[in-house]
Amino acid sequence: MQGKYRALWLNDDEFLEVIDQTKLPFEYTTKVLKTTDEVVTAIKDMTVRGAGVIGSVAAFGIYIACLKPNITYEALHVEAKKIRESRPTAVNLMWAVDKMMELLKDSNDLVNDAKKYAIELNDDEAIESQKIAKYGADIIEDIIKKKNKKSINILTHCNAGWLAVIDEGTALAPIYEARKRGIDVHVWVDETRPRNQGASLTAWELTQSGVSHTIIADNTGGHLMQAGEVDMVIVGADRVSANGDVANKIGTYLKALAANDNDVPFYVAIPASTFDFDIIDGVKDIPIELRSEDEVKYMRGVDSDGVVREVLITPKDSPAINYGFDVTPARLVTGLITNKGVCEADFDKIQEKFNKK
Amino acid sequence: MQGKYRALWLNDDEFLEVIDQTKLPFEYTTKVLKTTDEVVTAIKDMTVRGAGVIGSVAAFGIYIACLKPNITYEALHVEAKKIRESRPTAVNLMWAVDKMMELLKDSNDLVNDAKKYAIELNDDEAIESQKIAKYGADIIEDIIKKKNKKSINILTHCNAGWLAVIDEGTALAPIYEARKRGIDVHVWVDETRPRNQGASLTAWELTQSGVSHTIIADNTGGHLMQAGEVDMVIVGADRVSANGDVANKIGTYLKALAANDNDVPFYVAIPASTFDFDIIDGVKDIPIELRSEDEVKYMRGVDSDGVVREVLITPKDSPAINYGFDVTPARLVTGLITNKGVCEADFDKIQEKFNKK
Repeated sequence: MQGKYRALWLNDDEFLEVIDQTKLPFEYTTKVLKTTDEVVTAIKDMTVRGAGVIGSVAAFGIYIACLKPNITYEALHVEAKKIRESRPTAVNLMWAVDKMMELLKDSNDLVNDAKKYAIELNDDEAIESQKIAKYGADIIEDIIKKKNKKSINILTHCNAGWLAVIDEGTALAPIYEARKRGIDVHVWVDETRPRNQGASLTAWELTQSGVSHTIIADNTGGHLMQAGEVDMVIVGADRVSANGDVANKIGTYLKALAANDNDVPFYVAIPASTFDFDIIDGVKDIPIELRSEDEVKYMRGVDSDGVVREVLITPKDSPAINYGFDVTPARLVTGLITNKGVCEADFDKIQEKFNKK
Repeated sequence: MQGKYRALWLNDDEFLEVIDQTKLPFEYTTKVLKTTDEVVTAIKDMTVRGAGVIGSVAAFGIYIACLKPNITYEALHVEAKKIRESRPTAVNLMWAVDKMMELLKDSNDLVNDAKKYAIELNDDEAIESQKIAKYGADIIEDIIKKKNKKSINILTHCNAGWLAVIDEGTALAPIYEARKRGIDVHVWVDETRPRNQGASLTAWELTQSGVSHTIIADNTGGHLMQAGEVDMVIVGADRVSANGDVANKIGTYLKALAANDNDVPFYVAIPASTFDFDIIDGVKDIPIELRSEDEVKYMRGVDSDGVVREVLITPKDSPAINYGFDVTPARLVTGLITNKGVCEADFDKIQEKFNKK
């Protein structure tokens, strides 16, 4: 498996190759992206997903756009806009596109410079992930010590591992690091309807890495917390506002409420690029992506003959609605685990640590 | 459709006939139950489900058990025990079996007496449902008036309509009644993983009855409440403890937390038989049914050729865990809508209204 532990890479022809995450966990296949439109489609249809990976694909997407014969920096703006608007919620997407365009503004060799900068951004992100891993694993160690336990149960929602963020993810990075430190970790994997990123991607990732885990329906976390079966929650985020409100996969807010009600620490693991300082009140002002109702009404899986099939799971004529994200108010967040250390979800603390002018 | 608006009935041969709810919404089929074992299996495998309907099937199950040639009241106890233990959480099941056995203890004609008593219990439950409908619809009217709205959005979890409780259900009964009163009602239907009773049964029921509704992933209710799109929540229950803690389908607790966090009224609609006065602290002491992991790992639906198929939706070797219920603490419940009126979820109030010695 060429892409193991990597969600994207430049192939031998110098095109962008990505794991097709819509096929997991049933089939491991990759897609080669050669044009801006292919990059935009891959982001839109969730061939690639996860805040960090979307950012990386967007950065390499600018490089792919530069491959268009005789493209100028002016013309590149049109391509950049298409990529920037491919998904509305992920702030890393906008950040990566803007950063690439800024870096390229005086370039005399768009193709080679874009390639270099995209690789650099990717490498920076890998270092960020390793730092998140370290700070998060420190918290895991503290909780185990404080509770005087031999093992720890961590609940996560959606997928924020290496399929989502270079190189070991955000929410899962501390778990991988804790394992390296010899800690006995068990992960409760929220199924994460409607697209099942937990049951398909996170469970698949953890299986690859040999991490003990159990898949649960999204409905189950509250009961487990009441029963004392969850020691901490770690999730990723697609955007965090200046006051610490967290936009993440729909359903995150419900788990944060349950964690709060049962005194379970609720952490959000993010690179600093996830902050959107233009938005103060995230609950009011972060735009929420509305996706196709078919993602709720149809389910993909593999039948007893090994054939991947899509089945309708509702009455044909019943309408459905499909919001991709919700916003967890800062008051429910125990802390933000970032590449620059752990920070309270608080306006002043965030300003001080991340937005010093 | 013979069973329309009825989940069970005695057929022309005087056997018990039930809608096979595991086939909905894809196929409308019925099953005839002729022996105790068939009754037990139908309850266990969820051919019939829903607190009230399980109670009704259990009552008629005692009648079916009486059809065994030359059965004595002593021998009937063995059959009754099998039925009583077919599902652990539904208190109506135990209640109905015990009530039937009590009524039959001096009977000289078990078959005819059991039939008569089962029909009476069923009729009593229909009257209870009509009363719940009335009291619940009064609350709906009040909320509309208070908010000065022309329509109302009600969120429900799982299925507590006429497929669950004779004759119009519990949670859905007030909605059907509100419609009869000319109120414009829209229902947010929680999918209710892992068995999808919302997306399959509730959506199907509401479609049959022409009630406006939208299916949502279980993850979505919190966001909708934050956005002001939910005016009230009504759910059913499988057991309510003496202090007002509510055992209902897994995930109910998360919606109650979100309702509480957003000042959305959260009501539980139940017949008085749902109270279990032997249990004071429901969160600690109501036993929670653990079901097969396959209900999480496999999903049933209909493919593009109209064939009903079961597909695996997780990595084959990832384990899953499947708790059927959770318990919502009384402090999160706005009120209990019962056949004897609306009652606070409070020990003293419940004792006074329902458990006067």
